[in-house]
Amino acid sequence: MYPYRQLFDFTQEVFLHMGCPPEDAQLASEVLLAADLRGVDSHGVARLSGYVRLWEAGRINPKPNIRIVHETPSTATVDGDAGLGLVVAPRAMAIARQKAIQVGTGWVSVKNSNHFGIAGYHAMEALADDMIGIAMTNASPLVAPTFSVDRMLGTNPIAVAVPTQNQPPFVADLATAAAANGKLEILQRQEKKAPSGWIQTKEGQRSTNANELKDGGALLPLGSDRKHGSHKGYALAAVVDILSAVLSGANYGPWVPPFVSFLPVAENLPGEGIGHFLGAMRIDAFRPADEFKYHMDNWIATFRNASVKKGEKAVLIPGDPEREITQKRLQKGIPLLAPVERDLEALGHKFGIKF
Amino acid sequence: MYPYRQLFDFTQEVFLHMGCPPEDAQLASEVLLAADLRGVDSHGVARLSGYVRLWEAGRINPKPNIRIVHETPSTATVDGDAGLGLVVAPRAMAIARQKAIQVGTGWVSVKNSNHFGIAGYHAMEALADDMIGIAMTNASPLVAPTFSVDRMLGTNPIAVAVPTQNQPPFVADLATAAAANGKLEILQRQEKKAPSGWIQTKEGQRSTNANELKDGGALLPLGSDRKHGSHKGYALAAVVDILSAVLSGANYGPWVPPFVSFLPVAENLPGEGIGHFLGAMRIDAFRPADEFKYHMDNWIATFRNASVKKGEKAVLIPGDPEREITQKRLQKGIPLLAPVERDLEALGHKFGIKF
Repeated sequence: MYPYRQLFDFTQEVFLHMGCPPEDAQLASEVLLAADLRGVDSHGVARLSGYVRLWEAGRINPKPNIRIVHETPSTATVDGDAGLGLVVAPRAMAIARQKAIQVGTGWVSVKNSNHFGIAGYHAMEALADDMIGIAMTNASPLVAPTFSVDRMLGTNPIAVAVPTQNQPPFVADLATAAAANGKLEILQRQEKKAPSGWIQTKEGQRSTNANELKDGGALLPLGSDRKHGSHKGYALAAVVDILSAVLSGANYGPWVPPFVSFLPVAENLPGEGIGHFLGAMRIDAFRPADEFKYHMDNWIATFRNASVKKGEKAVLIPGDPEREITQKRLQKGIPLLAPVERDLEALGHKFGIKF
Repeated sequence: MYPYRQLFDFTQEVFLHMGCPPEDAQLASEVLLAADLRGVDSHGVARLSGYVRLWEAGRINPKPNIRIVHETPSTATVDGDAGLGLVVAPRAMAIARQKAIQVGTGWVSVKNSNHFGIAGYHAMEALADDMIGIAMTNASPLVAPTFSVDRMLGTNPIAVAVPTQNQPPFVADLATAAAANGKLEILQRQEKKAPSGWIQTKEGQRSTNANELKDGGALLPLGSDRKHGSHKGYALAAVVDILSAVLSGANYGPWVPPFVSFLPVAENLPGEGIGHFLGAMRIDAFRPADEFKYHMDNWIATFRNASVKKGEKAVLIPGDPEREITQKRLQKGIPLLAPVERDLEALGHKFGIKF
């Protein structure tokens, strides 16, 4: 178990060594480690060395000039200047929030960015202003559309955070694939099989081989197959791709640059970097904030008190599991798998930082 | 087969007899029949007698004073005055579009409305203005949250329509349940079993009985079970409920009034009527419209040309199946099941209109 503070300090040092300004190194560390705190282990410090390799490959600009390239009172398109998504996305969300203060809502589409950590972090940024926060991003193509064998879409997450009065906030944060790639990675390390309905082979047959993607297989959209609504998961992933990238001028579909630096970036790209879409809606742009929060508390209490199926413990509210993990990990520390520990030790060695 | 025009004229006459102003009767007919044209037979004329019964029960106001009760430059909350959702929603969408013209985007949350037909119709309204259209609504509770046996949410659809240049528009329109109730109704009429993963019994066990809802069962969220992501379908349905109803002041969760007039409306309601959420985003609020449409055409062409799995015909773009059905039905007419024909004949008899 590693205390949050220790991982935070280490991560910050690494970003400083990459050449990030101190403010950016601090912000990027906070965003990256939000994943570890919320139990999304695949998107946290486990990826730190991946960001470093992208920087070494010249694909991440540690001192980006993040700027608005197009705007209206309620919208902006932001050029991330190839910066860390961990820094670009919070800046874009700040613009969305500022616009929401002015005209009720703010919507920012981002191009020329990189991976932004967990979507939930960015959506939750709006909560402090009594706003509903929305965050989505496209990502490296791993998911096949319904009826296809080609990897055309990322696991393209959607996050929505909703303010409350006395209840903890409602925080939905979901990949639009049946299962996020991080869950497969865990099964790979444990040498376990994947449930049927997560993956297909390169010919499009169902597979339980957690390593199927290495052999040309693909993840399946939420819904798993046509009969159970995979065309809906595909459509949702497509909407995320369009709002994040076609709207901003980032790369979309099969052209989204891979996170791993050893895979080449495709040629003749239709856009710049990867794309995000961020939104903020002031709740008092629709009804008085107190009224809204009273009913949101009532909504949550009602759902939490719904009758539970035999064999299950409780009906959960989106955000409940992640909040419980956060409380536990802030107290007891964050567990790291041995390969991640070795990775961070090697990083420390490279930069002369004690891990 | 019934020519579209014949069903349209009949429907319009019925709405006129309910006391709708001519303009509203025409609009409501167009919206209702969009479902029949797009192949969503459960939401079209098959429901006309249901609307009449709600009007007879005093739950639909044929002459509503639809008005904005709260607004900012990019938002509005609309009181539908218990009008037909078929009329309230297009009026609310017109407000969203007007705001988008002014400040880039417009977002309208609607309370005190009734069922609005298919979500796709309302999202597509924005296409003519070169806007991305978004429409969602809550609905009668039929879906159980993950781990629960209680029916707490509607099949709460999300529709997103995206403008294009030469390609037909991208139109996603999806229920957030594994299968919409209309699909079950078809199986019931055919006395067929439902696929496993659509429904559970009142104890929460999987069921293939298409009539299970009559015995206290529930529909399952998109994803079907926890392992395949039903918590994501549940979260999406919850987001639709919150944006449509908690934000506007409509009824939410288990309190959403039933569509069928023979079921009583719950007491001590937390809001008014059912709720919708409508959005419009000008694409040139983000980047020049021509650029966007060029890339959107490229997006569609790329996905349509993706490799097809053996045994399947083509990779579809959201909106493709519905557009094909529309073309066919405009040419050859709209098929109606015998019970629907009898229903419409009875309606004609009641109002003295020839069917």
